[in-house]
Amino acid sequence: MRADGYFVALEGGDGAGKSTQARLLADALRGAGREVLLTRQPGGTRLGGQLRELVLHGDHMAPRAEVLLFAADKAQHVAEVIAPALAAGQVVITDRYVDSAVAYQGAARGLGADEVHRLQLWAVDDLIPDLTIVIDLPEAQGRQRRGVVHDRLESEDDAFHAAVRAHFVAMAHGNPLRYLLLDGMAAADQLHAAILQRLRADGVIT
Amino acid sequence: MRADGYFVALEGGDGAGKSTQARLLADALRGAGREVLLTRQPGGTRLGGQLRELVLHGDHMAPRAEVLLFAADKAQHVAEVIAPALAAGQVVITDRYVDSAVAYQGAARGLGADEVHRLQLWAVDDLIPDLTIVIDLPEAQGRQRRGVVHDRLESEDDAFHAAVRAHFVAMAHGNPLRYLLLDGMAAADQLHAAILQRLRADGVIT
Repeated sequence: MRADGYFVALEGGDGAGKSTQARLLADALRGAGREVLLTRQPGGTRLGGQLRELVLHGDHMAPRAEVLLFAADKAQHVAEVIAPALAAGQVVITDRYVDSAVAYQGAARGLGADEVHRLQLWAVDDLIPDLTIVIDLPEAQGRQRRGVVHDRLESEDDAFHAAVRAHFVAMAHGNPLRYLLLDGMAAADQLHAAILQRLRADGVIT
Repeated sequence: MRADGYFVALEGGDGAGKSTQARLLADALRGAGREVLLTRQPGGTRLGGQLRELVLHGDHMAPRAEVLLFAADKAQHVAEVIAPALAAGQVVITDRYVDSAVAYQGAARGLGADEVHRLQLWAVDDLIPDLTIVIDLPEAQGRQRRGVVHDRLESEDDAFHAAVRAHFVAMAHGNPLRYLLLDGMAAADQLHAAILQRLRADGVIT
């Protein structure tokens, strides 16, 4: 655990249960006496909200422009919100981070996962989460949970979501010290217990 | 000259006379029977216009977010406007392009010219101008011509503009085949004549 706070990202497909787990985790940490900042990407700042609108509801967005807008959102989010909170000793929990951009734009859209990853790391000035929790869910299940289609990204086809999922799982397998891979078919309270167990093992809570 | 059009960028500090020369050149080329697209960055698309507003008049922009928004503008501009026009055989003249982003954000802001350049090239999918015209002007002269301060970038101090200028000149010196370096103290018609001379030498007009 870092002296200056602890940084947790939740990643996974739409409908996997990220925001539920983020909320449960924030409540548990606050109950344990930690100061917690709960945030999300895209959209954790005023600029981010404007960019989120442009990306999710704009027309005719060039794929590279979309990647760069998501990266700009991250740059602003880290500089204005995340880095100051960590410096103040808080636990920061973000619903989506760098890996989502790489999975959705780099891997699934075919723009090159390596180049998109490099670009995202530059955007966040190499601020990597202490722990990234990947909640994995089969595409069919994710589609069912998503229900009504809300925006342009959610309406992509199953092959797209399969590529996104494969990227998240590969990231988690590649770096078990910084990742926790969870089965999204498990009940919410089971997932929450597994997350708390990991944070205890990492010394974030006692 | 490329079979599929010809791509000219005008670069230089504010007040150097880029837009005047862009207009004169467009008129001359049209007079010579070429189809011409005259555009500018940031802001050559609907998305670009929205981003231009965010960057030039927004508050509290993180430096890396600013770089990424300019890059997103370029990505959209190239995909939606510049590449199709070149493919249709037109001459494209843009007032500012990749070098401005590198000079203003990379070199002058200290974010790293190499990394910002790499990012910009990714944004434009490696579409480099056939000719970049740099109109060089001493800072004091530029400041005088700029007159009233219009936006956040124009209000930076002289050291910033000196760094921008040095970058443009270094780019031009480094690649004379793709650059034309002009003295912005010369009269507009002299600059225009020098530009036409270069385009004749390059076989763009006869």
